[in-house]
Amino acid sequence: MSTYAVVGLGYVGLGLAVAFSKKTKVIAYDNNKQRIQELKQQLDSHKLINQDDLAHPNIIYTDTLADIKPATIYIVAVSTPAYYYEFPNLEPLIGVVKDLAVVLKKDDIIIFESTVYPGTTEEICIPLLEKLSNLTNGNDFHVGYSPERINPGDEKHTLKTITKIVSAQNEKIRKVIEAVYEKICDSVYPVSSIKAAESIKLLENTQRDVNIALMNEFSKIMHALDLDMHEIIEGAKTKWGFIPYKPGFVGGHCISIDPLYLAFKAKQYAIQPDLILTARKVNDGMTQFVIQSMMKLLVKNKSDFHNLHIGILGISYKENVLDLRNSLSLKLLKELREYKFNCSVHDPLVHHDVQQVELKPFDELTDLSVVIIAVGHDFYREVGIKKILSKCHKNPIIMDIPNLFIDDHKHCNDLVYWNL
Amino acid sequence: MSTYAVVGLGYVGLGLAVAFSKKTKVIAYDNNKQRIQELKQQLDSHKLINQDDLAHPNIIYTDTLADIKPATIYIVAVSTPAYYYEFPNLEPLIGVVKDLAVVLKKDDIIIFESTVYPGTTEEICIPLLEKLSNLTNGNDFHVGYSPERINPGDEKHTLKTITKIVSAQNEKIRKVIEAVYEKICDSVYPVSSIKAAESIKLLENTQRDVNIALMNEFSKIMHALDLDMHEIIEGAKTKWGFIPYKPGFVGGHCISIDPLYLAFKAKQYAIQPDLILTARKVNDGMTQFVIQSMMKLLVKNKSDFHNLHIGILGISYKENVLDLRNSLSLKLLKELREYKFNCSVHDPLVHHDVQQVELKPFDELTDLSVVIIAVGHDFYREVGIKKILSKCHKNPIIMDIPNLFIDDHKHCNDLVYWNL
Repeated sequence: MSTYAVVGLGYVGLGLAVAFSKKTKVIAYDNNKQRIQELKQQLDSHKLINQDDLAHPNIIYTDTLADIKPATIYIVAVSTPAYYYEFPNLEPLIGVVKDLAVVLKKDDIIIFESTVYPGTTEEICIPLLEKLSNLTNGNDFHVGYSPERINPGDEKHTLKTITKIVSAQNEKIRKVIEAVYEKICDSVYPVSSIKAAESIKLLENTQRDVNIALMNEFSKIMHALDLDMHEIIEGAKTKWGFIPYKPGFVGGHCISIDPLYLAFKAKQYAIQPDLILTARKVNDGMTQFVIQSMMKLLVKNKSDFHNLHIGILGISYKENVLDLRNSLSLKLLKELREYKFNCSVHDPLVHHDVQQVELKPFDELTDLSVVIIAVGHDFYREVGIKKILSKCHKNPIIMDIPNLFIDDHKHCNDLVYWNL
Repeated sequence: MSTYAVVGLGYVGLGLAVAFSKKTKVIAYDNNKQRIQELKQQLDSHKLINQDDLAHPNIIYTDTLADIKPATIYIVAVSTPAYYYEFPNLEPLIGVVKDLAVVLKKDDIIIFESTVYPGTTEEICIPLLEKLSNLTNGNDFHVGYSPERINPGDEKHTLKTITKIVSAQNEKIRKVIEAVYEKICDSVYPVSSIKAAESIKLLENTQRDVNIALMNEFSKIMHALDLDMHEIIEGAKTKWGFIPYKPGFVGGHCISIDPLYLAFKAKQYAIQPDLILTARKVNDGMTQFVIQSMMKLLVKNKSDFHNLHIGILGISYKENVLDLRNSLSLKLLKELREYKFNCSVHDPLVHHDVQQVELKPFDELTDLSVVIIAVGHDFYREVGIKKILSKCHKNPIIMDIPNLFIDDHKHCNDLVYWNL
């Protein structure tokens, strides 16, 4: 039984470690001591993996680099964020590469899962590994790439049920890597090169970003024309081939970041990725559109601008997760605060401290003049619009970004309802 | 049995007239005398409608406006092109409105099918009809809108099998219009307003334009990185929700025009449609990308720049049609001619005179140094790459924009193969 090491125990890595533990020994490493401490206590603060799975005797959790040395297969699942919403930030990845160079032995295989621009693995990670380890790639050690396709909160598309893209620098190693993932995935799909595998991941997520951007831009036009975007989408769905994307906030660690990685690489080759970057700009600008729309409603509604109390419902980047990375709701809050508006924030899932954000319990929300439902958590759907209205002043403005109450609001009186 | 008039007998109108003729009397009107002459002889130069259908005793073809006066239902299917690839050109539509104002009677219903920006029917057509006819909309005459969804050359999605969006200014008239289309369409889908129906059509086609633009932009990046775009698409298809659009030329009268109509209206409302216009720019710029790629291949191939003979295969806007409107192949030809390159052009379907383009029979093509397969006509697929190579110099460059020979070229020697 070979031993695997999973390096980086975030949303992707922990799931991998747990899945492999059912088949083989796994050393689960993260340099975050706090994370290792909670995992040793069978607690996942991301609330994705349950206690029993965390307690599998095949897993060892460690923050000590030397502990991963017995492994022969290393799987890297470290985050690849962006600087200033613009440039790839490979620091966490390079940090892991430097660590791995210390423990690397002959015949080891390293598989990267982090989303990166095409060329990162072969042009940055491998040369650095060679330089720091004094081992030779292809001779002493081998590298592969298999992009993660984790969709947090999605119970249908799991590590087991999705198709896993795998790649390596030659067929022999790729076959080994295929066998690694066949242990935990129903379906494995080999591609011809690492760069191809890196690109595939970016195409998938960029397509999603661009399509939501189109719906957002179209929705802005429909708002200007006083038309109902959702009627337009329903009508368009009657045409063959139409893809029913919806307008909405795009945040998180994948869709809002991956296109930037692609754009960065394109520019290196003197290709201007105009469409990809425009889509990013459109999606990122939706907070400003919401504020602009709120201002128009406040004027129309003859609201008292100087005594506004704005309630923001939901602060995570998407529904039913507690992940805050690149949350547009958080961005909206920051922008509203620039107006010095009094804002109260609630989230049913986020309990940990959020920088400069005080979260209020739902029951303590009161006297709201504007409610911005920013995230479509099931909690709000279950609570219902009437309960939300009970937290408000007379004649409040309800801005429903995830369109939770597109039908229900019609049964309520004395509110101004706006949806995206 | 009520009498219908179809006004404008192009790709859309003729099909409508023929469909209705199987159920009721139809007066088929076009102010193009030549078109009426050919239809009277049971000939459709667009080659979409067969002789038997054209000969149905229920249809009368006419270029005399007064002849349509007996009708009570008028269906307008006139083209709505763009000026300078940028602004809506409503002249043909306004021309028809002026004509209709002359024949309009009490209780007539006019249904527009032409693709327009939201508001065109109610802000331009109706006021003009009222002014010129001295009749009152809603009282004396009525107006509806039902966007055409014709896909020339598509035998699956026909007027009969598609869902027909219908709209009017009130429910009573909309019900009448629903009954009109129920005669010829399997499924009718009413929407709440004319503006909504106008918008639905634009969303459908803009979505297609934007998605192909993304594939084109991505393909440019993949070319720069020396990766195979088609392997990337195949890999991405293994992810749930991925939509397998392909890179390619976007021309024709719908996809390349409709986004401009939408953008025009958006700007009237101070909304910058950045994404929509960027997608247009990307797609329109693909001819320049092909030429740039050709130049790179010519240098790499050590070709004789001064004795190039470029063969362009296909000049229509898409495969298996003879429609030249907004053909990117025609644009490519014009751009190549600016370099003074010697170009020979072939198209298996286009036989009529094309402005400033001399078409050559396939058998007369010879001594080509570069072949640009610009349109994926079945003819070329059937002819095969070997026959195309027999028309070439030694070691030719084959640029395969519709990716017809992505596999077959591997069985051929001594060629430089490039695909989009």
